[in-house]
Amino acid sequence: MTPGMMGSNTFMSKQNNNSGPLGVWLIGARGAISTCVAYGLAGLVEGLIEPVGLITEHAPFSSLPLAPYENIVLGGHDVCTRSLTDSASELIRAGVLPASLVEGGSSRAAAFDSHIVPGLLDGPDVGLANLDPATAELSSAAPLEQIERLKADLLAFRESQGCRDLIVINLASTEAFREESADWLDLERLENALESGAAQPASIVYAYAALSAGCPYVNFTPSRGSSIPALKQFAEQQGLPHCGSDGKTGETLMKTVLAPMFKARALRVLGWQGYNMLGNRDGEILNEASHRQGKLNNKDEALRSILNDSELHSHVAIDFVPSLGDWKTAWDFIHFEGFLGAKMSLQFTWAGSDSALAAPLVIDLARLTALSHQRGETGVLDHVACFFKAPLGAGTHDFHAQFAALERYARRK
Amino acid sequence: MTPGMMGSNTFMSKQNNNSGPLGVWLIGARGAISTCVAYGLAGLVEGLIEPVGLITEHAPFSSLPLAPYENIVLGGHDVCTRSLTDSASELIRAGVLPASLVEGGSSRAAAFDSHIVPGLLDGPDVGLANLDPATAELSSAAPLEQIERLKADLLAFRESQGCRDLIVINLASTEAFREESADWLDLERLENALESGAAQPASIVYAYAALSAGCPYVNFTPSRGSSIPALKQFAEQQGLPHCGSDGKTGETLMKTVLAPMFKARALRVLGWQGYNMLGNRDGEILNEASHRQGKLNNKDEALRSILNDSELHSHVAIDFVPSLGDWKTAWDFIHFEGFLGAKMSLQFTWAGSDSALAAPLVIDLARLTALSHQRGETGVLDHVACFFKAPLGAGTHDFHAQFAALERYARRK
Amino acid sequence: MTPGMMGSNTFMSKQNNNSGPLGVWLIGARGAISTCVAYGLAGLVEGLIEPVGLITEHAPFSSLPLAPYENIVLGGHDVCTRSLTDSASELIRAGVLPASLVEGGSSRAAAFDSHIVPGLLDGPDVGLANLDPATAELSSAAPLEQIERLKADLLAFRESQGCRDLIVINLASTEAFREESADWLDLERLENALESGAAQPASIVYAYAALSAGCPYVNFTPSRGSSIPALKQFAEQQGLPHCGSDGKTGETLMKTVLAPMFKARALRVLGWQGYNMLGNRDGEILNEASHRQGKLNNKDEALRSILNDSELHSHVAIDFVPSLGDWKTAWDFIHFEGFLGAKMSLQFTWAGSDSALAAPLVIDLARLTALSHQRGETGVLDHVACFFKAPLGAGTHDFHAQFAALERYARRK
Amino acid sequence: MTPGMMGSNTFMSKQNNNSGPLGVWLIGARGAISTCVAYGLAGLVEGLIEPVGLITEHAPFSSLPLAPYENIVLGGHDVCTRSLTDSASELIRAGVLPASLVEGGSSRAAAFDSHIVPGLLDGPDVGLANLDPATAELSSAAPLEQIERLKADLLAFRESQGCRDLIVINLASTEAFREESADWLDLERLENALESGAAQPASIVYAYAALSAGCPYVNFTPSRGSSIPALKQFAEQQGLPHCGSDGKTGETLMKTVLAPMFKARALRVLGWQGYNMLGNRDGEILNEASHRQGKLNNKDEALRSILNDSELHSHVAIDFVPSLGDWKTAWDFIHFEGFLGAKMSLQFTWAGSDSALAAPLVIDLARLTALSHQRGETGVLDHVACFFKAPLGAGTHDFHAQFAALERYARRK
Repeated sequence: MTPGMMGSNTFMSKQNNNSGPLGVWLIGARGAISTCVAYGLAGLVEGLIEPVGLITEHAPFSSLPLAPYENIVLGGHDVCTRSLTDSASELIRAGVLPASLVEGGSSRAAAFDSHIVPGLLDGPDVGLANLDPATAELSSAAPLEQIERLKADLLAFRESQGCRDLIVINLASTEAFREESADWLDLERLENALESGAAQPASIVYAYAALSAGCPYVNFTPSRGSSIPALKQFAEQQGLPHCGSDGKTGETLMKTVLAPMFKARALRVLGWQGYNMLGNRDGEILNEASHRQGKLNNKDEALRSILNDSELHSHVAIDFVPSLGDWKTAWDFIHFEGFLGAKMSLQFTWAGSDSALAAPLVIDLARLTALSHQRGETGVLDHVACFFKAPLGAGTHDFHAQFAALERYARRK
Repeated sequence: MTPGMMGSNTFMSKQNNNSGPLGVWLIGARGAISTCVAYGLAGLVEGLIEPVGLITEHAPFSSLPLAPYENIVLGGHDVCTRSLTDSASELIRAGVLPASLVEGGSSRAAAFDSHIVPGLLDGPDVGLANLDPATAELSSAAPLEQIERLKADLLAFRESQGCRDLIVINLASTEAFREESADWLDLERLENALESGAAQPASIVYAYAALSAGCPYVNFTPSRGSSIPALKQFAEQQGLPHCGSDGKTGETLMKTVLAPMFKARALRVLGWQGYNMLGNRDGEILNEASHRQGKLNNKDEALRSILNDSELHSHVAIDFVPSLGDWKTAWDFIHFEGFLGAKMSLQFTWAGSDSALAAPLVIDLARLTALSHQRGETGVLDHVACFFKAPLGAGTHDFHAQFAALERYARRK
Repeated sequence: MTPGMMGSNTFMSKQNNNSGPLGVWLIGARGAISTCVAYGLAGLVEGLIEPVGLITEHAPFSSLPLAPYENIVLGGHDVCTRSLTDSASELIRAGVLPASLVEGGSSRAAAFDSHIVPGLLDGPDVGLANLDPATAELSSAAPLEQIERLKADLLAFRESQGCRDLIVINLASTEAFREESADWLDLERLENALESGAAQPASIVYAYAALSAGCPYVNFTPSRGSSIPALKQFAEQQGLPHCGSDGKTGETLMKTVLAPMFKARALRVLGWQGYNMLGNRDGEILNEASHRQGKLNNKDEALRSILNDSELHSHVAIDFVPSLGDWKTAWDFIHFEGFLGAKMSLQFTWAGSDSALAAPLVIDLARLTALSHQRGETGVLDHVACFFKAPLGAGTHDFHAQFAALERYARRK
Repeated sequence: MTPGMMGSNTFMSKQNNNSGPLGVWLIGARGAISTCVAYGLAGLVEGLIEPVGLITEHAPFSSLPLAPYENIVLGGHDVCTRSLTDSASELIRAGVLPASLVEGGSSRAAAFDSHIVPGLLDGPDVGLANLDPATAELSSAAPLEQIERLKADLLAFRESQGCRDLIVINLASTEAFREESADWLDLERLENALESGAAQPASIVYAYAALSAGCPYVNFTPSRGSSIPALKQFAEQQGLPHCGSDGKTGETLMKTVLAPMFKARALRVLGWQGYNMLGNRDGEILNEASHRQGKLNNKDEALRSILNDSELHSHVAIDFVPSLGDWKTAWDFIHFEGFLGAKMSLQFTWAGSDSALAAPLVIDLARLTALSHQRGETGVLDHVACFFKAPLGAGTHDFHAQFAALERYARRK
């Protein structure tokens, strides 16, 4: 089989149709982050909220030719049947979404809801509550058929909305961790495996479908997505930009801001313990060891890399505390040594709404990725590394260095 | 009177005598920081400690032609009579200085102690315990005579030790805050005021004496020192480098690392409360409102500048907690708003030995300032802004941006 | 003048009319605590909320013959014109009051609102926003007339509602601190002063009015209220129970729980620093030094008393952080010494809604004080000391010891 | 076999020999706690330290006829060969033991060291560093022989020192957790098992040996020790007092002080997360899941019991952070609900030297247990429950209630 033969890139010709809206396709469309994205966009368009947390609203990014909010249309896949309204109610009770915003954004949210179609469930995730029956059916199909159907969903939405581009963003719950597979080493092996019917992580199937439909792809989760060599190759071949993985919203953001300080001051980090508590669906899923693995790797790797200490004593825990809901609370304890061998400590507690932190990054990434596509940038987008816990490209984990790179990108163009 | 006429720069001719040791003159020579500098240098030379906390030991700074530790000789002024050994005992009890280091560094410390001479007491600081009688005598002399005697101390040390250069570093306790004076606006006015016998803050008298003796000057305290326009002018005229003010060791370091993160992520800081507790001599003196003022200004200014919010609700307290001794403990609470109006918080507790944090910065600054002098750099040294709470030059308070500038300086040369 | 002659206790005869509802009169009736009391009671009666935070709902207190919630009617004084609905909206936005509760409790709240009449402004509190014009008029009257009018308000409410008893509870903002006055030393002196027109703190005028109307009095604030000897005497003379001062809701509760632990373990407290941040009206008023004084005294006294250390190094700060609203956030740092001279620390951060913490205590106190009145207990109620930062009676500040005493009271009767 | 037949209580006759010193036998004699006990006692006798942390030095306990410090002699078992001096050096470096105390207490420490004999290694603890060869030999003997030899060690020490009593205290590292065994259900079954050569946890063997030698026994660890029914029966039969288990030094102390506050205020605890970090030998051993189990059970049970909530969401972690050494650092996050459903939080960080916290409790327990023995109190000592995480008797975990019981005991007698 010829690599990429499944990716009929018939969309490419429409790419320069700049008159249509920008489509943003959310995988995990009824989850908390998607809900915040949808109501947040509605609130921005209606003037109900200020663009706090959105970096593309500020200099130097605000000078870039980015899609205006009112020109963004949302669609997505989800595996559950609960409605967006239910998700919104939960977030109101949690003090994340203001009731007035949910009221004011109701018609836009309803429009989005009407564009959510049944998605693909990852193999190990059986027994989920509220599972959409259509999802079950899709999930039992052969890989190639899954891809065709997911791709058809994307094409249909793009067509019906007259989108000038469609950015696919993975916001689904973290998948069970899988060791690297030989199937992923290059595109040919992956396509052979798909053809032979070998089950793949859902995030890989989705990413393949997106790329084959000509859609740029953003992986906001720790799941594999487009991070495997085969799909990096596919993205290049399709001439598409992609980025990921795992949105850097809270504790890891802090780590990548603070670790460079210790490094710059030549202070020796003796131990870095990070304890994360979470009560939402994400927390529930991460409560299972198999799902937690990928996330923990990302959180630890940043520290070792920045501090350039492969022997660093560090520890990351993610615990499920149902009462916290969306309010991620993390305590980090950093033990360090200064001059004269004196042992010192820094500890911090971060308490933030995980979804309200993630949503503006998702919007920023959609706009920036669309711009890259429009400009013909392909492959891994290095300049958005500051958005991710495990950036796909090489480069530093140091947040300020990453952000400076993004600023340079914005100023250069 | 001709500006600068009191600064007979007879030393300049010896500047290129690179064969001698580097002299470092510490104002506040028997204080906790000086004690850590002295024993720390001894420990480095004797191989008793590792160079943790010293940035000049790491790339790219380690490639600069800096003075080796064994080539540094210490002298200084102090107003108290207690011995360096007493200071050291206190720091052992506090768990800052290891007993073995004090033992191993005793002969070098004794050499330093023999070069400590009576200093000048700032006017408002009457009633200090253990005051050296010679200090009282000097402090009641006319300004011009004070300058001559301080300068003579510097010259004598430099001569006797055959120093190739002598860096004067202010480590004395924070002076009482003074409003800006018209006497300070240019060098002529200052010299007229000095001649007329008008009392000036001790830090200004010291800085004038240092510059007139041809010595580069570093102000590690929040006192005025060389920050006034008159002395900036004098430094330029003398062709001398200088820098300051107020070593950025702990809580303010954290502020200037974290505030840029909120800025970069477009999160809105609603309130930043900083509570500092300190139990050493510095804490005791800062317990008086008049002395605290200057320090508080520096701590607040950095935030407003980085966040570009002149209306920022912020608060800084410094409280004296005797039992903490040298262990500065600070709690900061940052209340911030994210997307959708969600209110979040970050809090941190920093617990560090103030002197062990400051001492390596002092050593780094001595080496870097000597290099600048040797290279003919004059006036305010902008590249060392990352060392200070209130850098004398213009420029950002953002620590990582400041550090990047220092790295560029190191790589350029 | 005969002591107490102004207190015509014409109500006493009706005291045993147990058929009517229990009246609860809130001074500061439109404040955040009162709002929570009103909607909370409504929610309890309507079954919209569970009785979390109400100790009288649990054994052994639940066996006492206390007034049922549905049998409580509310009235009160306030100096502002804003409506209860406005207060409620603020508390919804702050995430304290659930919107559904405000909806479900609206008719009961409206009934309460209709029984709020203009109150008395404390002398130094000029320039308050939203001041009720009727308040201004009352506040400029002679003390005796103020008392008669306040008393008439109480009598009218009690009469119109057919209350079997009326408990007056001070929930007004903290008054400016006043040094102890000779006028307060006994009832005769106080009545002479009132007659002579000498201005008194509003809380004293209110308390006098309540007692003279035959109403038990509860002082939930740090203001003087019934704490002065003259009013303690008056309460005894009127045969009325009273209690106070200053509800123990958060940080001081923690102090009086933790300090006994250090005492019991013979650990030596070296320093106890308490930093409180508050953003509601209470915080705004406490931001002024004159108002803060009384509160700070109460917070510090408990520690010294429990630790039996009059030399204890302690510090309490209360800072206004507007963005926090009702969410009182406090950080305490306790430095202590253990065996072998080892220095250790405990730090805690308490983050709670001040009004949601206070409201159930107010309801519990109303019920318990009414019971005491019914049982003929007079003077200071020692058994409710656990509710207060500065209990009026003698006795320990140790919370668990206070609570054990309350349990003994409940089991005894 | 007749229950207890192996316990020849030949010592009982000497019990009233009050002229001799009180012997205290420490199992784990070269560990950090023992080292602090030994130098601490030396310091108290020499007047080098104050009795901070020792409750028996304070009223009402100071009136009890307890053994004076100068009348206590120490001996013990250990499985390692390192010397007490090495342990002391480590604790000096960690800032726990003052160097001056180690110097001043050296001769008394040497005396103790000379009375430390090879102990018994628990079965699963193979591969320990520095293992004493004699320990290996003893550990491979049959259970009955182990008992005889341990008992002989106790008798020899008691005899040689002319002790009036010998208290055996288990301070050894936590054993691997074992499920309850049928062998432990009564004394007869245990003795049959021992006779048959069935391996038992070392702590049970030690406890049996102590009781059979007529020595009161204190279990300061989470290991089984005398907690099993068989040994409770044996202690009664021997007429000996015993107590345990697991010294309540830090985080659990806090829990049992704070949980009653939530209970008393009718606040609903939604989640209680406890994260413990430890860097000493104890921490290293607890790093293994098998050893951690027992400790975690004790820490969780107290909360559920006090809050009377078997469904409580709680979590306890103990992580090994080598750089912390003896400085146990724990962070607890308590999420709770107040009135109106408002969610609030309390978080605390406890930073204390584990050994300096434990040592005075060990001394207090030795003195109190000796007093009980002298007074003829037998079986589980209920009045010392406040010293333990998992008190052997029934009764509350509430620290203040436990302490009040101890005070009543002291006042009664």
